[in-house]
Amino acid sequence: MAADKIDTIVSLSKRRGFVYPCSEIYGGQRAAWDYGPLGVELKENIKRQWWRYMVTAREDVVGIDSSVILATEVWEASGHVATFTDPLTECTSCHKRYRADHLEEAYEEKHGRLPANGLVDLNCPNCGNKGTFTEPKQFSGLLSTHLGPTQDSGSVAYLRPETAQGIFTNFAQVHTTSRKKVPFGIAQMGKSFRNEITPGNFIFRTREFEQMEMEFFVKPGEDETWHEYWMEQRWNWYTGLGLREENMRWFEHPQEKLSHYSKRTADIEYRFQFGGSEWGELEGVANRTDYDLNAHAKASGANLTYLDAEGERYTPYVIEPAAGVGRTMLAFLLDAYNEDEAPNAKGVMEKRTVLRLDHRLAPVKVAVLPLSRNAQLSPKAKGLAADLRQNWNIEFDDAGAIGRRYRRQDEIGTPFCVTVDFDTLDDNAVTVRERDTMKQERVSLDQIQGYLASRLLGC
Amino acid sequence: MAADKIDTIVSLSKRRGFVYPCSEIYGGQRAAWDYGPLGVELKENIKRQWWRYMVTAREDVVGIDSSVILATEVWEASGHVATFTDPLTECTSCHKRYRADHLEEAYEEKHGRLPANGLVDLNCPNCGNKGTFTEPKQFSGLLSTHLGPTQDSGSVAYLRPETAQGIFTNFAQVHTTSRKKVPFGIAQMGKSFRNEITPGNFIFRTREFEQMEMEFFVKPGEDETWHEYWMEQRWNWYTGLGLREENMRWFEHPQEKLSHYSKRTADIEYRFQFGGSEWGELEGVANRTDYDLNAHAKASGANLTYLDAEGERYTPYVIEPAAGVGRTMLAFLLDAYNEDEAPNAKGVMEKRTVLRLDHRLAPVKVAVLPLSRNAQLSPKAKGLAADLRQNWNIEFDDAGAIGRRYRRQDEIGTPFCVTVDFDTLDDNAVTVRERDTMKQERVSLDQIQGYLASRLLGC
Repeated sequence: MAADKIDTIVSLSKRRGFVYPCSEIYGGQRAAWDYGPLGVELKENIKRQWWRYMVTAREDVVGIDSSVILATEVWEASGHVATFTDPLTECTSCHKRYRADHLEEAYEEKHGRLPANGLVDLNCPNCGNKGTFTEPKQFSGLLSTHLGPTQDSGSVAYLRPETAQGIFTNFAQVHTTSRKKVPFGIAQMGKSFRNEITPGNFIFRTREFEQMEMEFFVKPGEDETWHEYWMEQRWNWYTGLGLREENMRWFEHPQEKLSHYSKRTADIEYRFQFGGSEWGELEGVANRTDYDLNAHAKASGANLTYLDAEGERYTPYVIEPAAGVGRTMLAFLLDAYNEDEAPNAKGVMEKRTVLRLDHRLAPVKVAVLPLSRNAQLSPKAKGLAADLRQNWNIEFDDAGAIGRRYRRQDEIGTPFCVTVDFDTLDDNAVTVRERDTMKQERVSLDQIQGYLASRLLGC
Repeated sequence: MAADKIDTIVSLSKRRGFVYPCSEIYGGQRAAWDYGPLGVELKENIKRQWWRYMVTAREDVVGIDSSVILATEVWEASGHVATFTDPLTECTSCHKRYRADHLEEAYEEKHGRLPANGLVDLNCPNCGNKGTFTEPKQFSGLLSTHLGPTQDSGSVAYLRPETAQGIFTNFAQVHTTSRKKVPFGIAQMGKSFRNEITPGNFIFRTREFEQMEMEFFVKPGEDETWHEYWMEQRWNWYTGLGLREENMRWFEHPQEKLSHYSKRTADIEYRFQFGGSEWGELEGVANRTDYDLNAHAKASGANLTYLDAEGERYTPYVIEPAAGVGRTMLAFLLDAYNEDEAPNAKGVMEKRTVLRLDHRLAPVKVAVLPLSRNAQLSPKAKGLAADLRQNWNIEFDDAGAIGRRYRRQDEIGTPFCVTVDFDTLDDNAVTVRERDTMKQERVSLDQIQGYLASRLLGC
């Protein structure tokens, strides 16, 4: 069941245009994905909801959009050049590469604790041989490039592995120009790049991915309270958009495994049910302390302290909720995916696939369907679709039996289907069908905009 | 005047948080910029308007979001690996670097033809020495990186220099899954990267930039008509959002200087008034013919033809309107920038800076201002701000004289200022001040949401 559901989502995504394998006509680019017409709308809706909840609906958070390529000194000061590495090992028998820590964690999860000699005593998950792993080598997760005409060491530049550093380096400017007082936050959405050794699990782990990060600057000593606050806020964001709590849990990072900058990190995990593991990280909420601001102050010579209204000067602590757009979208898709039954044209119950996405996330809000392709119905339906398109993303579909067209919309999570039929020509009304209940209601064309607007509030 | 206005915009941008120099605390990254709290809102508003106009409000265009890093074969087939390069040489005496073709062209222009040994016989324009140039090396306008644990040639990958190729490689998948019929378009917004030799002019030309591109697939023979259609549409998009026609013009690319894929390209130019040149390219509208689809069909073996309803099979021609987000934002800022006069507290006319941005583009829609910091006014104003924040991006400002606060909002283009004063406590009404006319109107708090909603339609 577990792996099946992911496979079902991958297949649905490709078939309906949510997500395609990247560069597929060339045989594909390993673990890279492109978002199709439905995927790009769903993804944008997720980002818009995040931005609204985290930035514009709050008085204490502002946004920025910093560059992907920052000055190389930024990554030296942040510790990424030195410590953003993964231990890479290779099975000398089958030549498959692994992250040594992932192998060890998987073993621990199954057997409780590692054998005495660690990696040496583990079997290769691919070929089954034991004692075949090479000594792990530290391998940088930073993707590098060269700016300017020559490829010497002075021209090396890194693609950001997190958007957060663009926030820390702009802390003083944003603070000054936005005139916000601590506690306040700076949010950012955008692409990051990591040279993952083992990308995979569809859009869960890719080398190129979108982040939604917010750094919330607080007075030292108030950090633990704010950490709890943001953990709650983030949990509520997911559940508020319909993610079911039975598929979510908290994972507290053990002290000894915390990142170098972190005092405490708690992850929201989702029951992704990948082949190997049931739970996967959806979002991390970290207490990054004053590590980053201090590091940049020291390396750059800039003053990154804050003088509060009481005349106290300090380097703020930072609480960071950091989410990935791809895995958020995957969680919403998995959670919304449902199979139930609906009557076919002959009244016989048949299997129905339905994405029960929150209206605000659904890529298409309304489908307009003329009952049949007809010289009177089609223009009427097209006119209605054109009107509605001024407000929402609309599909027009006049191909095939009406029941089949309903199924097509259910499968992509369209909340409302509006059918123009022969009665419409007399009563100037249409049939509105709701996705989840499949209930139908007759609505006058004069009132259809208002009817839909009240049901699509906040979209 | 010309250079002044750009300088004014750069200074305003930095001071108010539209745009900051990237990595400024480290002395800056050459010609790279980060978008601050106001800049990110303005930029997102531009992108949203583009997406609405080009995609969701139309029935014949869908969107995608493809990867920045595509398979390397894509850039080989598209011609970018071969033709996106320049020959670089360095004088071994003074170490100045040149483009070899520029040196040779300059010599030819002066002396008619190159000496027998070419570059070897030329004098360095900087130090005057002869025979000091290194053998020219090809350097690429493509930024490259390496994916995976080893940095061998097989792991080379390129950052896209245009989003268009991600559309061409997905043409067949999008066509199949969206069930659109030619003529139809595929649109995309996203980051692209070019190793520019001469980046500059603020956010006009940067190595990392955002594009808004749409590839419209048409039947060969109908391409010229559709080219005209999209030229008109794109012109209307800018003017519809308030860009003044007297600052816009068309530039027709001469036949002999067209890109290798183009049959005709027309640019919308804007009067940017940079130091050296008055006009700059705002957007290119190109007839890319069937060049790209043919190239990818040949290299990948995929069938990228289209079978129309009449049974005719062809490779579609492509009309491409391609805009840059940064230069679009710069044009809107320059065009909206205005200095007029407004009365100060004593009724004396003083200079006022105002950004006359279209309401849909303005980063802040409404500012809520308590007349003074007061135990009764402040909570009332804060409550109003919190209510309005559910719908729009709002600023709350209670610092300084009211006139000064109006100026602060005028300068960033906020369409409406809502002032809560002592009368509010009696009449439950507020004063709404409009940015351009500076006219004030008393509006009941019960009606303020509706009042603003009707004036901020489409925001």
